[in-house]
Amino acid sequence: MATLKVPHPVPSAVEDAETLRKAFQGWGTDEKTVIGVLAHRDAAQRLQIRLAYEELYEENLIKRLESEIHGDFERAVYRWIFDPVERQAILANIAARDGDYRVVIEFSCVNSASELLAVKQAYHARYKHSLEEDIASQTTGDFCKLLVALVGTYRYDGVEINLRLAESEAKILHEAITEKAYNHEEIIRILSTRSKAQLNATFNRYKDDFGISITKDLTSESSDDFVAALRVVIRCIRSPQKYFEKLLRGAIDNHGNKDVITRVLVTRAEKDLAEIKDIYEKRTNASLDEAIRKKTSGDYEKFLLALLGN
Amino acid sequence: MATLKVPHPVPSAVEDAETLRKAFQGWGTDEKTVIGVLAHRDAAQRLQIRLAYEELYEENLIKRLESEIHGDFERAVYRWIFDPVERQAILANIAARDGDYRVVIEFSCVNSASELLAVKQAYHARYKHSLEEDIASQTTGDFCKLLVALVGTYRYDGVEINLRLAESEAKILHEAITEKAYNHEEIIRILSTRSKAQLNATFNRYKDDFGISITKDLTSESSDDFVAALRVVIRCIRSPQKYFEKLLRGAIDNHGNKDVITRVLVTRAEKDLAEIKDIYEKRTNASLDEAIRKKTSGDYEKFLLALLGN
Repeated sequence: MATLKVPHPVPSAVEDAETLRKAFQGWGTDEKTVIGVLAHRDAAQRLQIRLAYEELYEENLIKRLESEIHGDFERAVYRWIFDPVERQAILANIAARDGDYRVVIEFSCVNSASELLAVKQAYHARYKHSLEEDIASQTTGDFCKLLVALVGTYRYDGVEINLRLAESEAKILHEAITEKAYNHEEIIRILSTRSKAQLNATFNRYKDDFGISITKDLTSESSDDFVAALRVVIRCIRSPQKYFEKLLRGAIDNHGNKDVITRVLVTRAEKDLAEIKDIYEKRTNASLDEAIRKKTSGDYEKFLLALLGN
Repeated sequence: MATLKVPHPVPSAVEDAETLRKAFQGWGTDEKTVIGVLAHRDAAQRLQIRLAYEELYEENLIKRLESEIHGDFERAVYRWIFDPVERQAILANIAARDGDYRVVIEFSCVNSASELLAVKQAYHARYKHSLEEDIASQTTGDFCKLLVALVGTYRYDGVEINLRLAESEAKILHEAITEKAYNHEEIIRILSTRSKAQLNATFNRYKDDFGISITKDLTSESSDDFVAALRVVIRCIRSPQKYFEKLLRGAIDNHGNKDVITRVLVTRAEKDLAEIKDIYEKRTNASLDEAIRKKTSGDYEKFLLALLGN
């Protein structure tokens, strides 16, 4: 469930564009109003506001925001204002450039096949080349093989599972992990091509047959970046909510890593941030809102809390 | 340009279904009528006929055809009757099962990104799993790497090219080929991820800089299957028409390999068989119709000639 709260009735896109324009005028920017509008509109409404603003004032709303607001607040609004597909194309481009394997794995494994495809189409339109070629030319070795395979696949989205295959592929995975052959082609093949339903059956079978979960079995080598990447793949496929909760918790504990906090809140607020919040609060016996409040400040803090439904 | 000829005005789908039903009744099948209808209707019309036939007679037209006609003629009609996307999904499934690398390369390199995607979607719907997993689990080694990469990619379809990149990647390809490192990751990366416009710029640059075309440079090792596969990739990207002409010519010369003759005529009749025929006739100074006539016979021959526009 989303945490995003949209008022009812919601103002028209033209009214919102006019409200934002007023917030930009005069001495300084009225950030409270900017948050009041943008953090309480869904993706379709934000797009309409951008179009209405451009139509009314012959000015790009995103460019105007860049000159009006600053720092962490600006970065968070800049991520948020796009619709999920366009936002992911932008995040993918930055991640490919920086070799940020975690983000590449997230969007390739959390999205459905058709959502991932939409991101790749948006990538073509925006950057005039493909995501695959950027990742392939900007990463090397085992990471390149894994990431290109994950981004390139068009997984079957159905629920049918083949139990015999789950058994045989759990065995293949276990043998490779036991031999510490983490970069084994079979590991990459299985994780990158099988449907999510099939993979979950394989992971369950792994635990049943070998008495340990596959992620725990991989943890013994936690200093290896590639092994860490495999764990991210498995966790994103098994439960995106648990994955994002753990990521967020780590970011909050780790001096409040703002890039990660922003990414999780902005990308999940319209999807499943309520579940993520719930898991966090059960696990830590603390309020997520309170934790965010402690680690952030100013308009950035207010904006994140608004996304959290405050 | 297509060679398919559709009469004007064309009978309605119901009329065609009735005509086919009559052709099936009584002593034997009236194959001439079957050819007269099916070989002169486009993909959309064939689909409407299938639907009308099912509606009228509560019988699947394809199943009925299987019991009415036989041999090469049946196989050709069975390929032809589907629309191009469904047909390619079926061909892909057979090719994945048989490890027929040539067919896999054809549909992954000749189709545009969106056409390839449509084939993968039809594959999901028909087989309840993905094409990638079938190819990945049914091929091994270098072939697996190459084919999975080609099938998995979602190439950029735009015309923009980067000349500096064409130069540097022509050099990378030339070095790998000179060192006979045909399975080099860089070869697979470049061929499977770059846009077709970019690859054609790279192939042109290859010829300019090294005085030999990349396919000729690869021919010196013609006994190697993997090198042959790389040549198919390059030729399908450079000119599908020239590729199919050469394939067809080889099949005609090679005792009339019927699987290949059928595949080329059936898959290209609605697309570019006129160009392929033209290239064939310029190159051999002989009529393609005549060549097909010599190598085939009976209803199979009549059906193929009808697809060729006779």
